[in-house]
Amino acid sequence: MKSKDLDKNKIGSDITSLIKRLFPICRSITGNGVRETLAILSEKIPLNITETPSGTVVNDWEVPDEWNINEAWIKDSKGNKIICFSNSNLHVLNYSAPINKKVTLSELKEHVFTLPDQPDLIPYRTSYYNKNWGFCMAHNQLIKLKDDEEYTVFIDSTIEPGSLTYGEYLLKGDINQEVILICHICHPSLGNDNLSGIAVATALYNCLKDQKLKYSYRFLFTPATIGSITWLSQNEETIKNIKHGLVLTLLGDEGKFNYKKSREGNTQIDEIVQNVLKLTTKEYKILEFSPYGYDERQFCSPGYNLPVGRLSRTPFAEYPEYHTSADNLDFIKEDKMVESLEKLLNIVSIIENNKNYINLKPKGEPQLGKRGLFRSISGQSNMKNYQMALLWILNQSDGNHSLLDISNKSGIDFDEIKFAADALENVQLIQDINVN
Amino acid sequence: MKSKDLDKNKIGSDITSLIKRLFPICRSITGNGVRETLAILSEKIPLNITETPSGTVVNDWEVPDEWNINEAWIKDSKGNKIICFSNSNLHVLNYSAPINKKVTLSELKEHVFTLPDQPDLIPYRTSYYNKNWGFCMAHNQLIKLKDDEEYTVFIDSTIEPGSLTYGEYLLKGDINQEVILICHICHPSLGNDNLSGIAVATALYNCLKDQKLKYSYRFLFTPATIGSITWLSQNEETIKNIKHGLVLTLLGDEGKFNYKKSREGNTQIDEIVQNVLKLTTKEYKILEFSPYGYDERQFCSPGYNLPVGRLSRTPFAEYPEYHTSADNLDFIKEDKMVESLEKLLNIVSIIENNKNYINLKPKGEPQLGKRGLFRSISGQSNMKNYQMALLWILNQSDGNHSLLDISNKSGIDFDEIKFAADALENVQLIQDINVN
Amino acid sequence: MKSKDLDKNKIGSDITSLIKRLFPICRSITGNGVRETLAILSEKIPLNITETPSGTVVNDWEVPDEWNINEAWIKDSKGNKIICFSNSNLHVLNYSAPINKKVTLSELKEHVFTLPDQPDLIPYRTSYYNKNWGFCMAHNQLIKLKDDEEYTVFIDSTIEPGSLTYGEYLLKGDINQEVILICHICHPSLGNDNLSGIAVATALYNCLKDQKLKYSYRFLFTPATIGSITWLSQNEETIKNIKHGLVLTLLGDEGKFNYKKSREGNTQIDEIVQNVLKLTTKEYKILEFSPYGYDERQFCSPGYNLPVGRLSRTPFAEYPEYHTSADNLDFIKEDKMVESLEKLLNIVSIIENNKNYINLKPKGEPQLGKRGLFRSISGQSNMKNYQMALLWILNQSDGNHSLLDISNKSGIDFDEIKFAADALENVQLIQDINVN
Repeated sequence: MKSKDLDKNKIGSDITSLIKRLFPICRSITGNGVRETLAILSEKIPLNITETPSGTVVNDWEVPDEWNINEAWIKDSKGNKIICFSNSNLHVLNYSAPINKKVTLSELKEHVFTLPDQPDLIPYRTSYYNKNWGFCMAHNQLIKLKDDEEYTVFIDSTIEPGSLTYGEYLLKGDINQEVILICHICHPSLGNDNLSGIAVATALYNCLKDQKLKYSYRFLFTPATIGSITWLSQNEETIKNIKHGLVLTLLGDEGKFNYKKSREGNTQIDEIVQNVLKLTTKEYKILEFSPYGYDERQFCSPGYNLPVGRLSRTPFAEYPEYHTSADNLDFIKEDKMVESLEKLLNIVSIIENNKNYINLKPKGEPQLGKRGLFRSISGQSNMKNYQMALLWILNQSDGNHSLLDISNKSGIDFDEIKFAADALENVQLIQDINVN
Repeated sequence: MKSKDLDKNKIGSDITSLIKRLFPICRSITGNGVRETLAILSEKIPLNITETPSGTVVNDWEVPDEWNINEAWIKDSKGNKIICFSNSNLHVLNYSAPINKKVTLSELKEHVFTLPDQPDLIPYRTSYYNKNWGFCMAHNQLIKLKDDEEYTVFIDSTIEPGSLTYGEYLLKGDINQEVILICHICHPSLGNDNLSGIAVATALYNCLKDQKLKYSYRFLFTPATIGSITWLSQNEETIKNIKHGLVLTLLGDEGKFNYKKSREGNTQIDEIVQNVLKLTTKEYKILEFSPYGYDERQFCSPGYNLPVGRLSRTPFAEYPEYHTSADNLDFIKEDKMVESLEKLLNIVSIIENNKNYINLKPKGEPQLGKRGLFRSISGQSNMKNYQMALLWILNQSDGNHSLLDISNKSGIDFDEIKFAADALENVQLIQDINVN
Repeated sequence: MKSKDLDKNKIGSDITSLIKRLFPICRSITGNGVRETLAILSEKIPLNITETPSGTVVNDWEVPDEWNINEAWIKDSKGNKIICFSNSNLHVLNYSAPINKKVTLSELKEHVFTLPDQPDLIPYRTSYYNKNWGFCMAHNQLIKLKDDEEYTVFIDSTIEPGSLTYGEYLLKGDINQEVILICHICHPSLGNDNLSGIAVATALYNCLKDQKLKYSYRFLFTPATIGSITWLSQNEETIKNIKHGLVLTLLGDEGKFNYKKSREGNTQIDEIVQNVLKLTTKEYKILEFSPYGYDERQFCSPGYNLPVGRLSRTPFAEYPEYHTSADNLDFIKEDKMVESLEKLLNIVSIIENNKNYINLKPKGEPQLGKRGLFRSISGQSNMKNYQMALLWILNQSDGNHSLLDISNKSGIDFDEIKFAADALENVQLIQDINVN
C-alpha cells in the first residue's frame, strides 16, 4: 500500500476512536488493565496473549506479584473527597499497596507526589519493586490542604501472585526473517506516552494485513522493561529471525520526528529510517543510541544487541506534558498520528523493496531514447527526478549499491527510485543480482 | 614548464585567436562542422582523425546518419527574413530535418523554441535521435509575429549516411600509463560550453609538447555522448593504460573553479585536483560525482569506471547564459582561460612529480645546519615555508606518505614541497622508495 | 590521588617557590646553568644525572662544546654600562663566543638583536651551531645609542670541550610499561617557556610518588633537541617500554589548554587527553601534529614514532611575550599551574584506571533495584549522572569498549564512570576482561 493511496480520514478516525476507548483504563506492568487493553486490541489484530506467572525467573528478574486496584481516595474529616481514583487513575502511585488509615497532613505529605513547577498537573509516578503506598495530585491542591485537619487515605488495591500479560501477532510474509514493532502498554491514562504508539502500530497492521509481504512483521504489545525482558527470555529462537526492529511511542504530539539509532548505530534499519526522514520531512533529528529510554534498552542490551531503533516525535522528557495529566487526549493530534503512520509505510516500503541490481549495458550510458525512456528535445538545463533516477540507477548498479544507497546518494526519495528501477527492469537494462 | 615561467600574454592571445576562428562554425555530433573544427586544431596538434560510418554499432548505440546544413530561414509573406541561419547557427534546431513549407503562426509555434524568462536570447536546442524540424529564436521576437500572417520555413539540411568524426593525439612520455584530457566538440556557436575547454586543452598541449614527461598525455576532441561512446568502444586496450583523466569544459567564465569528482570519488586525480584548488585558489567548490553532466558520464559508467573527473569554472546550468546565444565571445575572458591553464599545469606538475621518499636519518631530526639547510640564529617565532617543508618531508617520509600527502597535511603547496624534497635528496637525507 | 583532594595552596606555593629559585639561572643546551637547575630539582626528585662528553656522536648529531658564561656588558666611551648580563641573562646571545673589543655603533648593530615591534622587550636569541657573538636588547634602548660614540663589547664566555647534561627519574609502578614526561631545561630566564613545565612536572611527581601505580612514570629533564636526541640515542631499550608520553611546557599562562596530537594522531594518549579536556574544561583546542615545536619533534620523528603528545596552554609563538623578557615571573600564574597539574592528574587517572569489562548479565538490563543501585520511585524525567553511568557501563561492556570509550560516548567524565564501574564490579555485574 502506497502512502498516497491512504484514506487518511478513515485511518485517522479509527486511531482516534481506539485511543478514546483505551485512555480511561488503569494500566500497569501487570493486572487487569493490561488484559483489558489487549482484549480491545484483539478486536483489530488477532493477538496471541501470553500470561507468565508471578515468580517466574526471567533473565536477571522475577515476574512480580500482580497489581490490581478498584478504588482510592483521600477524604478530609468531613468526608469530602479531596482526590479520587475515579477522576484520574494518575492520582494513585502506580503499584501502590492498599491502605486505609487516618493521617495528619505531614504524614500524608510523605506519600504524596506533586510537581511544584507545574502546579496544576498531576504527575505520573510508580513504585513497582519497592512496596509503598502513595498518591499524586496537583501541587496547587496540596498547598491548600489544612495543617490541623485529619485525612483518611483509602486505596483498595491488591498485590498478589498472578501473572504478567503481553500480546503479539506475527503477520507472515514470504520469508521467516522478521521486522519487530514494539509498543509498551503499561501506562495508565497517558495519551502520547503509550497510546499514540499502540494506535499507530494497530493502524500499520491494518494497512499491511492484506498485502503480499516479503518479510514477516511481528507486532508486540508488552509492559515496558519487565514485559520486554520476559518476552526476550521466552523467545531466544524467534530473536534469531529479527532483521529489523522499531520501538514505537510518542507518535502523536506536534513535534518533529526523532529517530534514535540502534546500539550498533549503522544497521539497515538505521539507514532506512534516516533515508525516509531526510527525504520526506522538513525537519527531524537523529539521536545516537543511549542506554536510557524505552524498550530499546532491552532489545539493545549487549546480550541481544538487536537492530532495533526507536521512532518518536518529541522524545520523552523533552516536552513538559511528559508523565503528567497534561499528556491527555487533547495533547495528541490525529493528523500527526496519521503522518507517523505514513512514515512507517515509507519505512516498510524500503524494507520490502530494497534490492541490488546490475546494469546489463554498463559500458557508457545505454540509449534510453530508443526504449522510450528519454525526452526527445535536449539542451534544456532542467532534468526531471524520473530521468535523473534512471541515470543514477544505471550508473550505480554494479552490484555494490542497493536502491537505498542510490536514493541516499542521489537525494531522490526511495519510491521514485523504485519506480524508475521497475521501468529499467522492464526493458531489461538492469537485473536483480539475487535472481539468476 | 612551471606556471610562473608562462608567457601569459602570448598564451592568452593564442587562445583568443583560436576561439575566434572556431566560434562561427556550426558543429553538431556529426558533420562537416566537426571536421572543420578538427582541421583547425590539427594546425596546433598533430591529431589523428577517426571516421566511424553511420550505422556502426558502438556499445548500446548506433552511429547516426550525418547531419549537414547549408542555409535556413523563416520569411513572412512579403519575403522579409524573420530569422536566418547565417546570423546565428543557434537559430536552427541542431539536427533539424530539411523543410520547405508555408505555415500559419500556430503551426510555426509548434516548431519554435524560445526562452520566455530570458526573452532576448536564442536558446540552443537539439533533436539528434527524434527526427524533427525546428527553429530557435528570441521570445521577444516570437511574440511580435502576427497571427494572420503566413510564413515560409526553409531548412536546407541533409541527414544521410556518413560518419562520426573525432580527433586525438597521444603525447608520449616515458611510460605508457596515460592521462586523458577530454573535450567535447559538438556545440555550435557557444563560447564557454565547448570552445573554452578546447582552447585551454590546446594551450596545455603547447606547454607540454617539448617537455620531458613521465606519463603519456592523450588529448581527445570528440562529440559528446555518442562520440565518447564510440571512442570508448574502439579503444578497450588503450583504456587499460588510463591512470588519470579530466573532462575539460566551461573554463572561460568568471566564476570560481568547480571540480566534479570521479565516480569512485577518492582516486588520485581527485586528490590532486583538490590539492591544487585548496592551496592555490581562494574559492572553489568540490562536487560529488553524479551521473549527469558531460562525458564523465561515459568514462565513469560502471562498465569503465575510469578515474576521470571534470574541471570547470561555473558548472553548466548554474550560469544563466548556459545554452543560449549569450554564451558568446564576450562572455568568456582570456585571463580566466589562462588561469585555467595554470591550474592544469599545477595538476600536471603533481602527476609528474609525486613520489614517496624514505628519510635516511629517521631517528630524531637530522642536523640541517651542517648541510646548509637551516638558519643560524634561532629563537624567532616565524618559520619560512621552505624550512617547514624540509621538516614536514623529513617527518613524514616513512614510505607511506607521498609528496602530495605531505602537501595536504602541511598546507604547503606542492611545488614548494617538491623544491624542498629536491634539496633533501641532493644532500642524501631522503631517497625515492622506487629507486633502489 | 584524586584531584579534589589536592592541597592546592601548598602545591601552588611549592610551584612558585621552585620557579623563583630557577628563574635567575642562565641555562643553555649545555653548561653549568643546566647542572645547577638539575641540582635544585634533585632536592625534589631523586634524579639520575647523565653527562655526555662533547664530540659524542648522537644519531645524526654531535654533542657540541660546552658553553659557560661569567659576565658580559656593553659600555660607552665614558665607561657607562649600556647593558649588562647581570641584569638579564637574555642580554647575551645564547652560546655567544667571547669578545672584548671596541666597536662603532654600526659594527655593534650587526651583533645586536632587538624587537622593533615590541620595542621595550629584550628578545631571546641563540646561535648554538654557528659561532658568533652577540647581544639582545630593547629596541628603544638601541635607537638612543649615538652614532659618533665608540662602544666596548665584553663577553666573558667559554665554548670548550665539556659535556651535555640531562636528568631523569623512573618512578616504578607494577609494570615496566612506562609513561614518559618530557621537560626542556635549556631556556635562561623565561618563565612560561620552560619553568612552568618543569615546576608542574615536579609537582606531579610529588603527587604520584607515594601512590600505588600500575604504570612506571619517567620524568625527563633535558635540553631541547640535542638533549632529547642524546637521550633517545642512549635509550633504545627503554624506548620499547614507552606506552604513553607527554611533552610538558607553557603551562602557566592564562590561555586555554592546547593539546598537540602525537604523529599518529590516534594513540591512546591522544584519546585520553582529549577526553579530559572535553569533559573537564570549558574551552580547549586540539592541534594536529606538525613537525615544528618542542621535543615531540624528536620523539615523533619517523625512526621512533612514539605515542607522545604535547600539553600546553597558549602554544609558543601565539602569545606576544613568547621568547622575550616579558615571559617572566609576572606572566605565569600560580593558579593556572595548579590547574595544569589537575589536568595531568586526570590524565594519570585514566592511564591507571582504564579497563575493559564484560557485563555478566547481558540479556536485558539487570535489576539494579534489588542490588541497591537504583532509585525506588520512578517516572521522573531526570536521571543522575551516576545512574546514567551505571546504564552506560552495563550496555557497553561487551569487551570491546573501555571505560574511556564509555566516558567518550556518554559524555560523563571518566572519574564518574570509574566510580560507577567499581560499584557494578562490587555486586558482580561486570568483570574485568583481563582478570580470569
